Amino acid sequence: MNVLEYINKWTPAVERTLNRLLPAGTRPLPFIQASKHLIRAGGKRLRPCLTLACCEVVGGRAEEVLEAAAAFELLHTFSLIHDDIMDHSDLRRGVKTVHRIWGEPMAILAGDALFAKVFEALSLNAKRMGLEGGKAAHLFQMVSRASFELSRGQAMDMLFSQRPTLREEEYLEMVALKTGALMRASAASGALLGGGTPSQVKRLGEYGENLGIAFQIQDDILGLVGEEDELGKPVGSDLVEGKRTLVISFALEMLKGRERKKLLRTLGNPSATKEEVKEVISLLEERGVLERTRKRALEFSGKARKLLRGFGESEALTFLEGLTEFVIERRV
Amino acid sequence: MNVLEYINKWTPAVERTLNRLLPAGTRPLPFIQASKHLIRAGGKRLRPCLTLACCEVVGGRAEEVLEAAAAFELLHTFSLIHDDIMDHSDLRRGVKTVHRIWGEPMAILAGDALFAKVFEALSLNAKRMGLEGGKAAHLFQMVSRASFELSRGQAMDMLFSQRPTLREEEYLEMVALKTGALMRASAASGALLGGGTPSQVKRLGEYGENLGIAFQIQDDILGLVGEEDELGKPVGSDLVEGKRTLVISFALEMLKGRERKKLLRTLGNPSATKEEVKEVISLLEERGVLERTRKRALEFSGKARKLLRGFGESEALTFLEGLTEFVIERRV
Repeated sequence: MNVLEYINKWTPAVERTLNRLLPAGTRPLPFIQASKHLIRAGGKRLRPCLTLACCEVVGGRAEEVLEAAAAFELLHTFSLIHDDIMDHSDLRRGVKTVHRIWGEPMAILAGDALFAKVFEALSLNAKRMGLEGGKAAHLFQMVSRASFELSRGQAMDMLFSQRPTLREEEYLEMVALKTGALMRASAASGALLGGGTPSQVKRLGEYGENLGIAFQIQDDILGLVGEEDELGKPVGSDLVEGKRTLVISFALEMLKGRERKKLLRTLGNPSATKEEVKEVISLLEERGVLERTRKRALEFSGKARKLLRGFGESEALTFLEGLTEFVIERRV
Repeated sequence: MNVLEYINKWTPAVERTLNRLLPAGTRPLPFIQASKHLIRAGGKRLRPCLTLACCEVVGGRAEEVLEAAAAFELLHTFSLIHDDIMDHSDLRRGVKTVHRIWGEPMAILAGDALFAKVFEALSLNAKRMGLEGGKAAHLFQMVSRASFELSRGQAMDMLFSQRPTLREEEYLEMVALKTGALMRASAASGALLGGGTPSQVKRLGEYGENLGIAFQIQDDILGLVGEEDELGKPVGSDLVEGKRTLVISFALEMLKGRERKKLLRTLGNPSATKEEVKEVISLLEERGVLERTRKRALEFSGKARKLLRGFGESEALTFLEGLTEFVIERRV
């Protein structure tokens, strides 16, 4: 069963669970509508599927951990809503962002509401399974720590964008927090609830983190060379916004002289022309900047893949293996 | 031991716990500084003391629930940081608000970070005490639900401010969510962790909710007639900001004709003169609007007080009893 088949198999149950956790009749209506807006708009539900599959590969039943799986979609969506406010983004998942429709104050509250529901979903899951006290505390600790790391990584990302250069190690630390921590927790929680041994929980957590880093590096590549009609953003948008991604980190290190000047003229310059942007992207390709970035993504996805060794063959394992390719091959 | 003595006795331990949960060296520094800013600025630590005292009155040891107590200060501070962004407030606890110093994006993240730490603090407490699974799930469920209700209440408050009138029941529902839910959870969690019976946990939770409602009604009175040099806000600030408080709800119902017109001329009108504001406040006093509001606060504090019957005499009980007077007599 390939990645999309596994996702399609579980998406309806995940979405039913999300709807149960956020009843449509909750008042005040604008508040619940704002909270559910991006969840309704779609998304690949990768994180919930990570939880379900990691539960299954250690011998657990995916049906038993649906609330926990949904919790990670809630956590992800909460961070998207707040991110979009901070970045002044207008579009997400092909629809207007929450703050663009309901205003910033309601968007802040909608994010907070989803964040609160994360822990309610987990406690419902723990209760229903009759989870033992130590395990319950461990589960909550993993998720709360990941949430803190997520905010910490976003703060780093924000502060980095004001710096002239960025070392690769700094980028990787930021990305491990911003994207890795949540995928680590999604995977490890599934393994914990599925009855995995401490070593299995640890391995699958590391798998999730490496997968997340590979995912984010590919995101950075797409933010630069992704097609406008697939991503809904113009080519090179990360460049003119001045984001400090791994591509930019490598570019600042590898381009010299006139070429470096061309890069600096477009970096963080929203009035750069399409031609200037295209020229810089060609340079990144020619000088091996993109190649070096793609290699890094491949290394992290390879690390993730290796961490799956030793688990018995199953549908869920095939999905987890497939994900390591999916995250670096995706176009959106 | 009166209210302030109990608070003074426990404040150092609560603050040490908060500092342990938020190590000063956490990077990036602006992120952790923004997160700790309002905690450092002071505050009465009422919610942590509620947790500690409710643990003690059911026979538990306050020292054992310090992380949980700190969790409620974190939850309260998180909501203050996000509230201040939404209200465009410049000052809080006598210092500049977080978003005024670090900007809105960092303030959103600082709030999120504290929110995440709430659940880490609780899981550390659960782990250290070896809390049984069902109780741990119950604890997390109470706190996550209270957090959701808090956001829901704030959303109601925001939406109410756009309405011409507000019924008392609507106001009370909003306040039970916005202020009552957190105090309910602070009290009930202390009782749960202290080994209270289900009925004790329920009663102390109800005590906390009623206390919170009385607290909020008094807040509304102070927002109107509080002295500028004590509150740091001009007299009548809630009036000219157009907040829909219980005083305003009663005023809209009780003032008629010319007097009602005077009220409407100042309500939500930042350019109203000091004289106009003073005149309206005099009217509220003369027509019994403030008296009726004070009576409501007294009723809720009385309900809270009654819920304490049957607990054996102790320092903690004296504190909880004293709090029911403190919340409606306070000037700041």
